[in-house]
Amino acid sequence: MSGGEFNSWQTVQAEVLRRINAREWKPGDFIPNEAELSVEFGCARATVNRALRALADTGLLDRRRKAGTRVALNPVRKATLDIPVIRYEIEGKGQTYRHTVLSQERAVPPSGIRARMQIEPGIKLIHLVTLHLADGKPYVFGDRWINPEAVPGIESADLTVKSANEWLVANIPFEGGDFSFSAMTAGKREAEILACREGEGLFVIDRSTWNDGLVITSVRLTFAPGYQMHTKI
Amino acid sequence: MSGGEFNSWQTVQAEVLRRINAREWKPGDFIPNEAELSVEFGCARATVNRALRALADTGLLDRRRKAGTRVALNPVRKATLDIPVIRYEIEGKGQTYRHTVLSQERAVPPSGIRARMQIEPGIKLIHLVTLHLADGKPYVFGDRWINPEAVPGIESADLTVKSANEWLVANIPFEGGDFSFSAMTAGKREAEILACREGEGLFVIDRSTWNDGLVITSVRLTFAPGYQMHTKI
Repeated sequence: MSGGEFNSWQTVQAEVLRRINAREWKPGDFIPNEAELSVEFGCARATVNRALRALADTGLLDRRRKAGTRVALNPVRKATLDIPVIRYEIEGKGQTYRHTVLSQERAVPPSGIRARMQIEPGIKLIHLVTLHLADGKPYVFGDRWINPEAVPGIESADLTVKSANEWLVANIPFEGGDFSFSAMTAGKREAEILACREGEGLFVIDRSTWNDGLVITSVRLTFAPGYQMHTKI
Repeated sequence: MSGGEFNSWQTVQAEVLRRINAREWKPGDFIPNEAELSVEFGCARATVNRALRALADTGLLDRRRKAGTRVALNPVRKATLDIPVIRYEIEGKGQTYRHTVLSQERAVPPSGIRARMQIEPGIKLIHLVTLHLADGKPYVFGDRWINPEAVPGIESADLTVKSANEWLVANIPFEGGDFSFSAMTAGKREAEILACREGEGLFVIDRSTWNDGLVITSVRLTFAPGYQMHTKI
């Protein structure tokens, strides 16, 4: 390749990737610095920077502020997951979305939820169980706890109209969240709600989101059999 | 806040986040451009750019090259997943790693694998089943197909020494991969290999990786009961 071809960060990235793949640059090797590469490629240093950053984001390069950039020795590949609102996920598949609130009450949370949400003993939260349906069939149900102290307006929200999932995303910004993905075995309750057999393996997402140091909500999403979550790297 | 405080992209990000959270900038609103913000914050434009990019990466801002940057109307939050080598994952928990090859053969893959790996009918691939153990207990097993055409050196590699998982990461660079996460119900085979009961819900990762347009390998990882995969946003 001649220098003139490197007119975008993508072409620079492709060439760096080629050199790593061809083992011209081997795992653990330092690669030339941005200034050197920008001269070699005949492009702006910012272009090189953008390309190397993208490769560092996937774990293929290991960048240290002072030491320089190496080809990663033990690459931990990083994948990006989209976390959409459930309605958009279902509608994105061309299916009709509907949700129904199975229960809504004020209750003292169990100790696991209390610890995760950093709630004092005896404090009541909003406890909500919502079933989301795709083309009329159970898709996922959310067993959710909401801290009303952290969610202004929740008391007067009608969560049978917009689901809590959608209402919270639309109304309450959040800074961060914890996600955990696992599998469980359907018991009587899950089988009833999801219209599946007891003993089926179900995909589960546990998710807590917070803002300003307060946990807003903690939800366990239990998906009907056959659910798959996809990503690419 | 006065301008002098914005001396890092993190402080700029925090202030932008504060304005979104306080709804000074509402969902769907255009925010000032980078040049305007760099004047307001008294910092380099690159600092503003880095902060806005980080917020766009999490889905909170919606950046369009020509139209400008808006607060996302329907934020699709993005989470990043680390995909480590299984040995590192287990050792990272302070457990002892061991692996054992349950079977290795040349075989014609089933049609699902053949389609996923874009293999002609009748072509034999390497089929390998490897159990990974943590502190001597089954942790996950990989049912893996490898295309020897795409993996130079695989024929002479002893995959009972380094697992195929680790050998491939160390020796064969890859450009990309497809991941799918789901749950299954343990049958007789899974129960035997993982020493669990039939009918338990198990977490499953299906993963195909490719390089230079060829699918290198396709593996189904089936985890022992209780496995959780974590991430934060």
